[in-house]
Amino acid sequence: MGCVQSFRDMCDRPKNTDVRLRLPAVCFIWQTAMIILFGIFIRYDSESSPYWVEYKRDHNISSDAENDFYFRYPSFQDVHVMIFVGFGFLMTFLKRYSFGAVGFNFLIAAFGIQWALLMQGWFHSLDYSDGKIKIGVENLINADFCVASCLIAYGAVLGKVSPVQLMVLTLFGITLFAVEEYIILELLHARDAGGSMVIHTFGAYYGLSISWMLYRRNLDQSSRLQGSVYHSDVFAMIGTLFLWMFWPSFNSAIANHGDGQHRAAINTYLALASTVLTAMAISSLFQKHGKLDMVHIQNSTLAGGVAVGTAAEFMLMPYGSLIVGFCCGIISTMGYIYLSPFMEKHLKIQDTCGIHNLHAMPGVIGGIVGAITAAAATEPVYGSEGGHRSCLTPAEQGGYQAAGMCVALCFGIGGGIIVGCILRLPIWGDPADDNCFNDEVYWEVPEDEESSPQVLYYNSHMHNKDM
Amino acid sequence: MGCVQSFRDMCDRPKNTDVRLRLPAVCFIWQTAMIILFGIFIRYDSESSPYWVEYKRDHNISSDAENDFYFRYPSFQDVHVMIFVGFGFLMTFLKRYSFGAVGFNFLIAAFGIQWALLMQGWFHSLDYSDGKIKIGVENLINADFCVASCLIAYGAVLGKVSPVQLMVLTLFGITLFAVEEYIILELLHARDAGGSMVIHTFGAYYGLSISWMLYRRNLDQSSRLQGSVYHSDVFAMIGTLFLWMFWPSFNSAIANHGDGQHRAAINTYLALASTVLTAMAISSLFQKHGKLDMVHIQNSTLAGGVAVGTAAEFMLMPYGSLIVGFCCGIISTMGYIYLSPFMEKHLKIQDTCGIHNLHAMPGVIGGIVGAITAAAATEPVYGSEGGHRSCLTPAEQGGYQAAGMCVALCFGIGGGIIVGCILRLPIWGDPADDNCFNDEVYWEVPEDEESSPQVLYYNSHMHNKDM
Amino acid sequence: MGCVQSFRDMCDRPKNTDVRLRLPAVCFIWQTAMIILFGIFIRYDSESSPYWVEYKRDHNISSDAENDFYFRYPSFQDVHVMIFVGFGFLMTFLKRYSFGAVGFNFLIAAFGIQWALLMQGWFHSLDYSDGKIKIGVENLINADFCVASCLIAYGAVLGKVSPVQLMVLTLFGITLFAVEEYIILELLHARDAGGSMVIHTFGAYYGLSISWMLYRRNLDQSSRLQGSVYHSDVFAMIGTLFLWMFWPSFNSAIANHGDGQHRAAINTYLALASTVLTAMAISSLFQKHGKLDMVHIQNSTLAGGVAVGTAAEFMLMPYGSLIVGFCCGIISTMGYIYLSPFMEKHLKIQDTCGIHNLHAMPGVIGGIVGAITAAAATEPVYGSEGGHRSCLTPAEQGGYQAAGMCVALCFGIGGGIIVGCILRLPIWGDPADDNCFNDEVYWEVPEDEESSPQVLYYNSHMHNKDM
Repeated sequence: MGCVQSFRDMCDRPKNTDVRLRLPAVCFIWQTAMIILFGIFIRYDSESSPYWVEYKRDHNISSDAENDFYFRYPSFQDVHVMIFVGFGFLMTFLKRYSFGAVGFNFLIAAFGIQWALLMQGWFHSLDYSDGKIKIGVENLINADFCVASCLIAYGAVLGKVSPVQLMVLTLFGITLFAVEEYIILELLHARDAGGSMVIHTFGAYYGLSISWMLYRRNLDQSSRLQGSVYHSDVFAMIGTLFLWMFWPSFNSAIANHGDGQHRAAINTYLALASTVLTAMAISSLFQKHGKLDMVHIQNSTLAGGVAVGTAAEFMLMPYGSLIVGFCCGIISTMGYIYLSPFMEKHLKIQDTCGIHNLHAMPGVIGGIVGAITAAAATEPVYGSEGGHRSCLTPAEQGGYQAAGMCVALCFGIGGGIIVGCILRLPIWGDPADDNCFNDEVYWEVPEDEESSPQVLYYNSHMHNKDM
Repeated sequence: MGCVQSFRDMCDRPKNTDVRLRLPAVCFIWQTAMIILFGIFIRYDSESSPYWVEYKRDHNISSDAENDFYFRYPSFQDVHVMIFVGFGFLMTFLKRYSFGAVGFNFLIAAFGIQWALLMQGWFHSLDYSDGKIKIGVENLINADFCVASCLIAYGAVLGKVSPVQLMVLTLFGITLFAVEEYIILELLHARDAGGSMVIHTFGAYYGLSISWMLYRRNLDQSSRLQGSVYHSDVFAMIGTLFLWMFWPSFNSAIANHGDGQHRAAINTYLALASTVLTAMAISSLFQKHGKLDMVHIQNSTLAGGVAVGTAAEFMLMPYGSLIVGFCCGIISTMGYIYLSPFMEKHLKIQDTCGIHNLHAMPGVIGGIVGAITAAAATEPVYGSEGGHRSCLTPAEQGGYQAAGMCVALCFGIGGGIIVGCILRLPIWGDPADDNCFNDEVYWEVPEDEESSPQVLYYNSHMHNKDM
Repeated sequence: MGCVQSFRDMCDRPKNTDVRLRLPAVCFIWQTAMIILFGIFIRYDSESSPYWVEYKRDHNISSDAENDFYFRYPSFQDVHVMIFVGFGFLMTFLKRYSFGAVGFNFLIAAFGIQWALLMQGWFHSLDYSDGKIKIGVENLINADFCVASCLIAYGAVLGKVSPVQLMVLTLFGITLFAVEEYIILELLHARDAGGSMVIHTFGAYYGLSISWMLYRRNLDQSSRLQGSVYHSDVFAMIGTLFLWMFWPSFNSAIANHGDGQHRAAINTYLALASTVLTAMAISSLFQKHGKLDMVHIQNSTLAGGVAVGTAAEFMLMPYGSLIVGFCCGIISTMGYIYLSPFMEKHLKIQDTCGIHNLHAMPGVIGGIVGAITAAAATEPVYGSEGGHRSCLTPAEQGGYQAAGMCVALCFGIGGGIIVGCILRLPIWGDPADDNCFNDEVYWEVPEDEESSPQVLYYNSHMHNKDM
C-alpha cells in the first residue's frame, strides 16, 4: 500500500495531455510488431484456404455449406456489432465524452483483435507440425470476445485515462485474458460458451482494480461533465439495444454446431427478456415519484445476458433462464442505486459506467449458475451424446466450473493491480482531475451552434452595459 | 356509446402519474407468472435439445446444417433488430419523448415475447403427448411477430398513455393476436407469411380503436411538444432504415425453406424500393415549394413492405411487387397529408405516429393483393409441388384469404374497443392533457446544457434591471 | 474547356430551388419505366421460383441448404446495411445537412437498385432461351454494389446539388457502371470480388469529375454550414462503424462458396483493423497538441477495406492484409490533411466528404495490390483447383487486372465529365452558392428548441432598450 501511496504522490503534478508523439509512436510500433508477428505465425486454416477442396474430399464432405464459415459467420457479425457499436455507443451517455467513448473503443478494439489472434492462437490454435497459427472464422469470434473483456474494463475508467493508457490496458488485458482462458478452458476443462467467467468476471475485476489504482480524490472537480444530456442518453440506447438484441449470438457463437448453438440462443433470449422487466420495476420502485432512470435501462437490462453466459448451452431450461434474468435485473439495478455510491465513497473505486453492476456481479452469478447446472446434469436430460463431452462426472464438472471462476477473479484483480501500477506512471498523458470526461483534451471538438446564443447574449450584454 | 361517455366523464379529474407502485407491481407479478407458466409448459424442441442427435439419426440427416437454426437464425436476428431498434427509434421523432419511445417499446416488447411464446405455443406448438410447448428458433420469430402488432398499436397512443397502460395493452393484444392468428392460419388455412393481415391490419386497427376510446379533446394543450427537432428526426431515420432494410427478412423469416424464403425476400426488396420513389414524389408534390417532409420519408417509405407481406412468398412476380410498392407509397403519403387531420378532427382518432397510413391501409391492401394473387395462381406457374400446399383450388384459397382479412379487422376493432374501455379506468396513471408527449412524467430527464443560456440570460437580465 | 466555361456562365443567375414539379415528375416517370421494363424482362431464377424443386432433383441436391439464398443472404443484409445506414449516416456529419445526407442517399439507392438489376441483368444474367433476366439473391447483392459507386460519387457533391441532379447522376452512373463492369469482369476476365476497381475507383473518379465540372468559386459563402456539430459527428460515427464492421461481408458477398468467402472475410477484417491504428496515429501526429480529428476517424479508418477489395479472395495472407491496411491508413489520412485543401485550391475540385482520400486512392491501391497478388500466385499456394478458375498464367492475370484498373479510371473520369456537363444545365434546381449544405432548401425543417433562447433574448433586449 506504501507503494501505492508513493505512486500517487508522484503523479500529483501538472498534467501534460499532449499525446502528439506518444500515441502515434505506440500505434506505429505496435502495428509494425503485429505485421511481423503475423508474418511469422499466422496462416489460413484448412477451411479458409484452397486446401478446403482437399479437406472436403478427405473428410467426405459433399457441400460447401459444411464450411464452418456458414455455421458461424452470421453470429460473428452480430458479435462484431456488439463490440464496436454496442460497447462504443453504450458509453456515449456522457454529455461531452461521446467522441472518446466511441473513438477510443474503436481504437483499442481494432488493436486488441490483432493481438488476441496471436495470443489465443499460441495457446489454442498452434499447429505443431509447422509452428503456425491457423485461423478461421472461429478465431475471429474469439478475438472479438477477448477484446470485449478490455472494453468492459474501459467502462470503469471511461473519461479518466488517455488513449495511450488504454493501449497499455489492452495490451496487458489481452495477454492476461489468453492465459486465464487457457487455464480455465484447457487445463480445468471448464465450459464457458458465453464467457460469464472468462470474459465478464475477468474483464470487470480487471477494470475495477485499475480504477482503484487510479483513484482520483478530486474527481468532483469534473462533476459538471459527469452526467448525460437528453440526446446523449438516446445515443447510449443504440448501444444498449444492439448489445441486448445480439447477445443470443454472443452466447451461441462458439457453442457446438446444431442443438448447442440453438439452445444457447434461446436461453439468452429468454434471460434478457426477463431482466428488462425486473430492471424497470426496481428502477421505478426506488426513485422519487416512480420515475425511471436511463442509467438503469441502459445497463441493467443487459445483466441477464451476462449471467446466462456460462450456462447458455447447458440444459438450463427456459424457466431457468427466466429466473436467472429475473434475479440479475434486480441485483444489477440495486447495485447502481446502492453499491456504486458506496464503492466510490468507501472503497475508492470510481466506476464510470457501473461495470460492477453490469458485468462483475452478473458474471459471478453466471459462473455459479453454470457450476450448479453442470453439477445437476443427469444422463437422461442430456441424452447419451450431447452436452459436455468430457469424461467427468457432473459433480466434478461443477467443481471445475467453480475453480474456473476463482481463476478468473484472481487474474482480474491481480492483473488489474499490476497494470494499474504501470498506468500510474506520470508518462501517459492522462487528464487532470478538473478536466476528466472532456473530449476537448484529446479531440478537435467542433464549436457548437448551441453556444452561439450565449456568445450573442454576452456581446449584447456588454454593449448594453456601455450604454 | 353512453358507456363510452360515462367512462370519459369519470376520467376528467386531476391525474396522478406516479407509477411507483403500480409499474413495479405489474412487472413483478407478470414476470413471476411467466416463470411459473414457463416452468409448467415450455420445453426445448427436438432441434434445440440433445435429442437432436437422435433426431438426425431417425430422419437420416447427415449434417447439422439441416438444423432449422441455420435456416432461420439470420432472419430472426434481423426481425429482432426491427422490433427493438426499428420500432423503438422510429418513434423517437418527438422532441421530448425519445426516452418513452425507445424505453417503453423495449419494456413491452420484452414482456410481449414471453407471453407470446405461451399464447402461440398453446395454439400452435403444443405437444399433445406430454402437454408441453416445444420451442425452437421459429417460435422466437413468431413471438417477435406477435409483439410487432402491439408495437404498431403503441404508435397510435404514443405519448398519451402510461407504461402500466402499455403493459395492459400488450397483455390483451398478444392474447387477441394468438386467437386471431389461430383462426386465420389454422382454421381458415389462409397464408400470411409477412403478416399483412395478421400483424399489420390487426395491430393497426387495435391501436386506432384504443386511441379512439382514449380520445383527448384538449390534446392541443400539449401541442408545443407534439413535434420534432432536427436531431430527433435523424434518430427516427435510424428506425426507418433498419425497418426498411430488414423487411425482406421479416417477410421471409417463416416462409418455406428454399425458394419460398428466397422469393419472399426478393419481392419485399423490390416493393420497398418502389415505395421510396413514390412516397418522396407525393411528399414533394403536395408541399409548399416542393420541400420534402420527414414524416413521410420516415413512415410512408415502409408501406410497400407492409403491403407485400401476405403475397411475398407467392408468385407475385418482380413487376407485381413494384406495382404494389408504387401504389402504397402514394396512398400512404396522401394519408398523412389528408386523412390523418380528417380522422383527428372528425373521427376523434388521435394517431400520433400515423399508423393508419403506415400499417392499416397498406395492411388491408396487402390482404387484398394476397387474395387476388392466390386466386389467380395456376398450376403451370407454381409447378407441381411448390406454392401453397393445401388441397384448395386457387379460387377457394383466394376466398379464405379474404375471410382472413375480415377476421383480422374484427379482432382489431372489437378488441381495441374493449381494451380501450379498460384503459379508460382512472387507475393507470396516464398523463394530463397538457403534459402528453413529455418524458418528464415517467423519466428522470437530465438537465440540458442548452437550457443554460436561458438561465444565464435570465439571471443577468434580472441583474440588469436592478441596476 | 471553352465548353466548360460557357456552361459555367450560363449558370450564373438566380437559382430556383423549387423542385415541386421536377422531382415528382422524375420519380413517377422513372418508376413507371421500371415497372414496364421489369414486366418485360425480369423473372425469378431457378433457386427463387417453384422450379427449385425440379432443380434440386435434376442436380441431385438433397437439401434446401444448398440454395444460394443460405450462402449469401446474411452477407446481403450486411451489404444492405452498409448502403443505406453506412453511407447514409457517414454523410450526416454536416451540422445542417443530415436530412439531405440520409434522405437523398435513401432516394438514390432505392432507385439505383432497380435500374442496376436491369442494367446488370442485360449484361450478366440474360437467359437467351427466353430473353428474360433471371434474378436471385446474388443479383440483389450486385445491385447494391452497383449503387455503392453512385453513393460514393454523391459524397463528392454532398450539399451542392438538388435531388433531381442526384437522380440523373444515378441513372447515368449505374449505366456506366454496368458497361464498365462488363468490360472488366467479362471481357478482360479480371477478378474484383470487393470492387476496389469496379466500385471504388470508378465511383470516386466519377464523383470527382462531376464535382470538378460543378465547381463553385463562391462556395465559401456557405462556409458557416460546412462543418459539423458535436452530435452530428456522433451520428456520422454510426455510419462509419456499420461500414467498418460489415466490410468483410461486402468483400466476401459474391466470392466463391466455401474457402473463397471465408478468406475474403478474414483478409478484410485484418486490413481494417490495421488501418484504424495508422489513421489514428497520423491524425494525432499532424494536429496541434496531438488532438484527433473526427473527419479522419470517420473516413480514413475505412480505407483498408477499400484497398483490400480486389485481393480479398486471393491468397493475400494475413500479414499482407495488415500491410495493405497499414499503408492505406497513412495515405488516406495524409490525403485529408494535405491533398484535399490542395485539390480544392488548385484543381478546383470541391470534395465534400473527401472521397478522393477514402475511395479513389485506396481503390487504385487495391487494384494494384490485386494485380500484384494475382501475378505472384503460384500453383502450390493455391492448390490445384482453388483460386482463379481461368486458364490464364499468373502473369497474364496480373496484366488483365491492371488493364481493368485503367478501364475503371477512364469510365470514371470520362463519364463524370459528360454527366457533369449535363448537370450544369440550369434546369435542375440546385442551390445557390450561399445556401449549400442547408437542409432548408429541400426539406421542411422543424424549428429547434435551441433557437428559443436567442428569440427570448432578442425580445427582452428590445424591451430593455425601450425602457
